Amino acid sequence: MPVLALLDGTIADPTQPLIRVDDLGLMRGDGIFETVLVVDGKPRELGPHFDRLVRSAAMLDMPEPSRADFDRATQAVLDNWTGGSEIALKWVYTRGIEGGDGTPTGFALGLEISETVQRQRATGIAAITLDRGFDSDVAQRAPWLLLGAKTLSYAVNMAALREAARRGAEEVIFTTPDGFVLEGPTSTLIAVYGKTLRTPPATIGILPGTTQAALFRAAEREGWSVKTEPVRVSELAEADGLFFASSVRKITRLHTLDGTALPDSTAVHSELTRLYDSEY
Amino acid sequence: MPVLALLDGTIADPTQPLIRVDDLGLMRGDGIFETVLVVDGKPRELGPHFDRLVRSAAMLDMPEPSRADFDRATQAVLDNWTGGSEIALKWVYTRGIEGGDGTPTGFALGLEISETVQRQRATGIAAITLDRGFDSDVAQRAPWLLLGAKTLSYAVNMAALREAARRGAEEVIFTTPDGFVLEGPTSTLIAVYGKTLRTPPATIGILPGTTQAALFRAAEREGWSVKTEPVRVSELAEADGLFFASSVRKITRLHTLDGTALPDSTAVHSELTRLYDSEY
Repeated sequence: MPVLALLDGTIADPTQPLIRVDDLGLMRGDGIFETVLVVDGKPRELGPHFDRLVRSAAMLDMPEPSRADFDRATQAVLDNWTGGSEIALKWVYTRGIEGGDGTPTGFALGLEISETVQRQRATGIAAITLDRGFDSDVAQRAPWLLLGAKTLSYAVNMAALREAARRGAEEVIFTTPDGFVLEGPTSTLIAVYGKTLRTPPATIGILPGTTQAALFRAAEREGWSVKTEPVRVSELAEADGLFFASSVRKITRLHTLDGTALPDSTAVHSELTRLYDSEY
Repeated sequence: MPVLALLDGTIADPTQPLIRVDDLGLMRGDGIFETVLVVDGKPRELGPHFDRLVRSAAMLDMPEPSRADFDRATQAVLDNWTGGSEIALKWVYTRGIEGGDGTPTGFALGLEISETVQRQRATGIAAITLDRGFDSDVAQRAPWLLLGAKTLSYAVNMAALREAARRGAEEVIFTTPDGFVLEGPTSTLIAVYGKTLRTPPATIGILPGTTQAALFRAAEREGWSVKTEPVRVSELAEADGLFFASSVRKITRLHTLDGTALPDSTAVHSELTRLYDSEY
């Protein structure tokens, strides 16, 4: 059963309505979120997730979220959780009621890890590349596009996943018209070349990944080279392994790209998973 | 007082929660909407608005909305309205509950026309141009970007309006990196040259405007030339008048663009308003 907690720590019934129709989170997708992985009662990367929530709020000119509020709601979810050993914990923070006093709407929602995600973690996934339409330099010159903010306006991300399904795949690597790799609709892309891990920089118009950062920390400690730098789409085919990192999917392996089987990266996947696990 | 009606015609209290936290309209901005202007109890452009809702639903692979449902909800709002002579009537239709049975969430919400919009209608507005980041050909080749669908994912539209406010303006003309005019965050742009009205085509990645279409019908009948064709940003300065058209703002005049006063277009504005009014 999902567990819903308000920012004051109150538990609410997630099957009952909580949001007014004039909440700007609903009416305009005007709000932000984070998804934190909780394993055996311990939230992972809590600090980086909260820091990113604060950055997203700043990019949207929203009031700064209170760490105490989200800690309280998080604790309430953990205290009331009766499900499996892992929780996908969502933090949501909207601009609040249209024409209201500016008080954001916030809550924390604990969900089971879906069977789909569990299967994908284990067996890997097929992905396609899709043009995101934005050149690699637009995020810097046009901050109003909110590239790099984790907003509730995810309709395009969801449409991209449906396009993937139409093409017999389950995931998407967004790319720029000028030939660079961006990210997945809900994850960070990591490309492995020998003992080097590469991921695109946030400046290209993507979210800095919390799970990717954890993996890079662990890998660097064990002597890997880790590079946050632009990756060309043409370089994907040369990689020894391609992986999506996100809180709920951890490190998920791509076995197929645009209909073509990738080289077997199960050994690399095991190694990255070991590195990721070593952080916790 | 706002009036809220569900698709079965039931009236609900808009100050009470109606939406679950796991509604995809909230969590992912995954849904669509329309705003219909009602004047003296008569909805304007009801057919075109509903047709556009159906097109948006198709672009998002959502179930086709039922005209009977939205007519019923609309009538319920009208029957219970006790406010002013004009209503901004919103139709909202989301993908429904995450992991649910796929039933969309839908409602109609009647709101007063804000004082801001009423002032803008009367006195005109200052606007700025802002890069939308998408080239003029991207909508055709990348339908997953949902350009031309009226989705709930409007965080960027709202951020653009805040950027306008920071620059001392109230509205935005989105432009493409390759130098074409798109639309406003919540309106259609119309440029007037002598007895010719021009507006950009939907194929460039914008919404076809219902109010703009009504104005063009009326203008054409009275001998104006009306052109739906690409408009270059460089052509804006040469116009005899620039106008935003939308249901709630009707035909609103731009008096300033990017900090520069535009030629006086009050006479053109009066003429366009007369044409628009002649449709009803």
